[in-house]
Amino acid sequence: MTTTDALSSLSTPSLILDEGRMLRNVDRLRQHLDPLGVTIRPHLKTVKSVEAARHVLTGGNGPATVSTLKEAEVFAAAGVKDILYAVGIAPQKLPRVLALRATGCDLTVVLDSPEQATAVANASREAGDAIPVLIEIDSDGHRSGLRPDDPAVVSIGRILADGGAALRGVGTHAGESYGAVGAEALAAFAERERLAAVTAAEALRAAGLPCPVVSVGSTPTAHFARDLSGVTEVRAGVYAFFDLVMAGIGVCTPDDIALSVLTTVIGHQKERGWIMVDAGWMALSRDRGTANQAVDQGYGLVCDIEGRVLDGLVVASANQEHGVIALRSGSSASLPDLAVGTQLRILPNHACATAAQFDGYEVIPADPAQPMAYWPRFRGW
Amino acid sequence: MTTTDALSSLSTPSLILDEGRMLRNVDRLRQHLDPLGVTIRPHLKTVKSVEAARHVLTGGNGPATVSTLKEAEVFAAAGVKDILYAVGIAPQKLPRVLALRATGCDLTVVLDSPEQATAVANASREAGDAIPVLIEIDSDGHRSGLRPDDPAVVSIGRILADGGAALRGVGTHAGESYGAVGAEALAAFAERERLAAVTAAEALRAAGLPCPVVSVGSTPTAHFARDLSGVTEVRAGVYAFFDLVMAGIGVCTPDDIALSVLTTVIGHQKERGWIMVDAGWMALSRDRGTANQAVDQGYGLVCDIEGRVLDGLVVASANQEHGVIALRSGSSASLPDLAVGTQLRILPNHACATAAQFDGYEVIPADPAQPMAYWPRFRGW
Repeated sequence: MTTTDALSSLSTPSLILDEGRMLRNVDRLRQHLDPLGVTIRPHLKTVKSVEAARHVLTGGNGPATVSTLKEAEVFAAAGVKDILYAVGIAPQKLPRVLALRATGCDLTVVLDSPEQATAVANASREAGDAIPVLIEIDSDGHRSGLRPDDPAVVSIGRILADGGAALRGVGTHAGESYGAVGAEALAAFAERERLAAVTAAEALRAAGLPCPVVSVGSTPTAHFARDLSGVTEVRAGVYAFFDLVMAGIGVCTPDDIALSVLTTVIGHQKERGWIMVDAGWMALSRDRGTANQAVDQGYGLVCDIEGRVLDGLVVASANQEHGVIALRSGSSASLPDLAVGTQLRILPNHACATAAQFDGYEVIPADPAQPMAYWPRFRGW
Repeated sequence: MTTTDALSSLSTPSLILDEGRMLRNVDRLRQHLDPLGVTIRPHLKTVKSVEAARHVLTGGNGPATVSTLKEAEVFAAAGVKDILYAVGIAPQKLPRVLALRATGCDLTVVLDSPEQATAVANASREAGDAIPVLIEIDSDGHRSGLRPDDPAVVSIGRILADGGAALRGVGTHAGESYGAVGAEALAAFAERERLAAVTAAEALRAAGLPCPVVSVGSTPTAHFARDLSGVTEVRAGVYAFFDLVMAGIGVCTPDDIALSVLTTVIGHQKERGWIMVDAGWMALSRDRGTANQAVDQGYGLVCDIEGRVLDGLVVASANQEHGVIALRSGSSASLPDLAVGTQLRILPNHACATAAQFDGYEVIPADPAQPMAYWPRFRGW
């Protein structure tokens, strides 16, 4: 059976993963970062699948980043033993952190306040297990973290080191880089991220505190960093799949996007130039990440079943289980004649959000001699 | 244990359902529609839970509407025997429709093209089972359906009736009513919906075709319809939970909203007036349905753990697992001092989208003497 025949036999909507594109994307970031002398710590919040993670992690089980304790627990059970939980720790979650560490997983937490540091130090002492911590640094005003020169960096470091936790270092994430466009702007963001992390690390060391780990990363900055002096590891997540947001800022092209949603034409409103499909926001997600980019891709860019982009066609609007395909505003293309029953593939705005709407990936194998595979995903917290 | 204690012991983020509010909401629509002489056919795409559906459906198993065949299959297995699948049928899905009907479920499909009608008629003849069909009518230009006076209504009716399917009637959904505000505007939408469905039904009957069912509905029009002459049933979904979009157009108040997301404070950016919580868009969904309303509620309105709205506080932005709480633009309230570890509840923009991010409901019982319950949800297609 050809891949197209295999796709045609799937119920719709389904989530399609092109393994060849994924492997190419993973390899591309390794090729870029290896010469810069840093470890890659992939963020598994994008894939949320043990099978996919095997292809993304160095050696299949290498260091990982997660966004929930559920991810940490699932990947630890699958053999991943070095995990960074990269969302500020709530004190109520420390019993789960300790329970997971007790199974042999080296789980590190992040925080940015004296209150959290005291809670982690107290929990460490009570459990007789020094919980490793990265202090979160704010490099761009995006969300959490301390400014690199904030005296609280050192005072928090001291609470941790003196209190019985394991001060492991600093981490930052240049989330604002998603709004920058092109190689120069993204390289500048990467340098800003590096400088913030290294400055905070130097402050800790100058105060006589340990800082073995200097962790930075986002998919845009990871790809455009030119110098990572002083950095020990880089985190990135969406790079394994890519998406239209990343294409919109020049990190990839639509042909690199490994994820798509298979859908079926269920009707037309010819006077309005609409083609109705059975992928609504429940399948595509409500993410409109390209809305403020130079090219607004609606709820996704439309391809034929082989994955070839159909000129000018986007999912212009979405209800829960209805997608409305139309020509992008200003497009000079003409609406193709796609009969009821025609199958299409939609490239997503944001891979993390779209993948999360599904229970698993229908995998187009990198080796065309192999049959399609199914890789389950998980979710929850 | 008090409800507040029970909530405090939950991990966050969690999805909270206030059973008392839900029962009040369900009862309110029954009280309004019963005197208008129509059957209620609740849309279960909102609840996606057998336990919740028991409280919503008349008699626990009464007529239902669904948005996916998966919903039809799950609810049929739970004993719901009269189901309308209200998304235009793809020919590839007819084997599943027939298989479910063969189990004894009276499943009806909708369509709006001669191609679909021919496919359903052919499948009916081949299976020896006349699949019931509603012809979809477009009452407001929102998405699918034929205009009530389109001659295709009758020609499709004839394809079905002559071809071996069961022409059961017409259905319409005034999706544009979500953009209308206030009782007068919503009553006008309800009348437009009624008139479109009744006009199409009369065209079928004038052509000698059967039309026993005249189905209309959306949560806004269902609540504000004043006369439903000629209509046999009303569909609505989000009314059971309500949400900020419905509050924004005047269908409910925030105190009617039965659904919320429990979250924990994980940090602050005091200079920016931000409170960070562990509910990002993965928990709240990316739905920004209030963005174009008179009051933009961001990613949700913030309440204390008891469910009391905190004046002026919204989730102003969201990353995957981070929510940023801030004062709504223009608010004169002052930012409350909420320590790390404080638990809050977020009212959602769109109940269907937020609920879909979770595997189940933590239910606050209507009877305070009862303990909290857990009602699993399902998803997929």
